[in-house]
This record gives sequence, structure tokens and C-alpha cells, in this order.
Amino acid sequence: MKAHKPYYAVIFSNALCASTEGYRDMAGKMEELAKNQPGYLGFETAREETGISISYWDSLEAIAAWKANVEHEVAQAMGIKEWYQWYKVRICQVLREYNFNRE
Amino acid sequence: MKAHKPYYAVIFSNALCASTEGYRDMAGKMEELAKNQPGYLGFETAREETGISISYWDSLEAIAAWKANVEHEVAQAMGIKEWYQWYKVRICQVLREYNFNRE
Repeated sequence: MKAHKPYYAVIFSNALCASTEGYRDMAGKMEELAKNQPGYLGFETAREETGISISYWDSLEAIAAWKANVEHEVAQAMGIKEWYQWYKVRICQVLREYNFNRE
Repeated sequence: MKAHKPYYAVIFSNALCASTEGYRDMAGKMEELAKNQPGYLGFETAREETGISISYWDSLEAIAAWKANVEHEVAQAMGIKEWYQWYKVRICQVLREYNFNRE
């Protein structure tokens, strides 16, 4: 991740419906599309009972532009119509961070 | 989640080592302990290739107190000594949020 402060995180927490035909393909496509958006910094995702996907951005404007991306809007509508039992989106400012790496 | 603004998120992203004896027990114990800390608002977690755990707090002071909790300090030291290949902690302020719930 090529992060530099200040930057922002979009936490997308969700649960899927029982039937999720087409979801994985769309999720992969959106991940690729996000990577090519201006201001994109990185992405992390994991799913068990709850799915958590976090995207990182260099400005709130970049987040707004990604939300309004036409292909992303189609995916969001599909998510509401077909795939998500619930979701919650939180727009956050990263205040500070620290790491550990085993060598 | 009994959230009220302003509030804060601690994003803990990580990967485990090949051997993780004792990790799951400790993670469950820490989740229970966090729930009883002052200022605790909620918790979300999922693990695939990467593990993501997010805890939500009503103040930065509550986050600092949780980090300094003696039992949690023992768990953090065990994590560095034994369990984590890497981790990254991000302290965030939640600026805004929105939801979808299928009924």
C-alpha cells in the first residue's frame, strides 16, 4: 500500500443472501475497477459469517467519485436487488497507524 | 451496535503464522474482554487469506485504555512472539455512515 497521510478508509461490512449467483464475478470486477480509480491506495477483504471489505483512498473526493462511477452504480443496485442481506458503509479518516512485520 | 457520533474504529489487519496454537482461545478471550471495556461500541471480524478485525469505540481515550489493558498487553506480546506474520493497526475516526437492511 502506497499510503501517505492524511488518508481515508471505507469500511464495507455486509452479509450475503442465500443465493449469490453472479456476486463473486462482480466483486472481482469491482475490485479491479477500483484499483484504476484516481486516489485509490489499497484494498483488504475477508469473509466468514460477516464480509468485511475495506478500501483506502487519498481524499473524500476520490471516495465520492468511486461511489458515483457508473459501473459501480450498477453493481451497487445489483447488490441491493439481489445479493446483500444487509450492509453498512462507514467513511473514516485514518488518524494514525503502526505495523509489525516478522522477518 | 449502539453507535453515536463521533466515534472511532480500530482496523486490525493481519496474517497468521503457520503454527497458531492457542491463538483462537486468546482471540475469543480478548473479544470478551474488549466488550467489557469502557467506551466499547462493537466488533466485526472475518478471516480468509488476511484477517480483519475492527473494534468500535466512543473515544480515543477508550482506545488507549484498551491498548494498555494488562491482559490485552499480554495477548499483544504473545501475538508478536508467536502468532502474527504481520499486522497493521489503523486508528480511524468514523466521519459518516449509511446502511441497507433487506426486510
